[in-house]
Amino acid sequence: MASIFTKIVQGEIPSYKIAEDDHHLAFLDMMPLVKGHCLIIPKQEVDLIFDLENEDFKDLWGFAQKVAQKMKKAFPDLRIAVAVIGLEVPHAHIHLIPIHKMEDMNFKNERLKFSAEEYREIQKHIINS
Amino acid sequence: MASIFTKIVQGEIPSYKIAEDDHHLAFLDMMPLVKGHCLIIPKQEVDLIFDLENEDFKDLWGFAQKVAQKMKKAFPDLRIAVAVIGLEVPHAHIHLIPIHKMEDMNFKNERLKFSAEEYREIQKHIINS
Repeated sequence: MASIFTKIVQGEIPSYKIAEDDHHLAFLDMMPLVKGHCLIIPKQEVDLIFDLENEDFKDLWGFAQKVAQKMKKAFPDLRIAVAVIGLEVPHAHIHLIPIHKMEDMNFKNERLKFSAEEYREIQKHIINS
Repeated sequence: MASIFTKIVQGEIPSYKIAEDDHHLAFLDMMPLVKGHCLIIPKQEVDLIFDLENEDFKDLWGFAQKVAQKMKKAFPDLRIAVAVIGLEVPHAHIHLIPIHKMEDMNFKNERLKFSAEEYREIQKHIINS
């Protein structure tokens, strides 16, 4: 069965896209730890990120860097933290998380909820930065 | 002043090295969250990881992947989690952390202490995997 992220890639599940190319997609996490929390995925459905071919792995990070640089412009006072955990959805994904302090990227923290309008605002803010 | 990591690169501060090439170094974290917690650094002293040139950034991750694959062999029952926080030492570094569960990579957790002999055992175990 297609992963929830493959359904996002295929447009079966809507998402707030931040960037996309032939092989990668960046979109807003719908269970964000903080405002602007993004997910980066390879369109190829692979469970463990380190199982990607070396060139594909490097390209995924090259794509993530461009998204992170946009996020840094959108949130200039914050650090863009990175996490890959791999215990949630069995489709490799990178978390990019704008943080003030270490504690902001504790995955045990309560997740934020935004309205559709707020998500669209965040999306627009990052894309236009 | 040289960062603590540059001093490790230059051999002024000893470390338990896991892998090295001309531009990158992997070594055991001396304040590990779990057994086998590794740090990956570019030898070039840059504060923010996303400020690396795109090719250098991709190569750093390509190197990290090889270390992670070795760690996966050393700890086959665990996931190799990734974190970049960037609030501690002003020299870009990637944490590779063998985890059982999400909570294992909470940076607020108490750090482990190992003896020199234990560190050498862990080092040998990863290198020989």
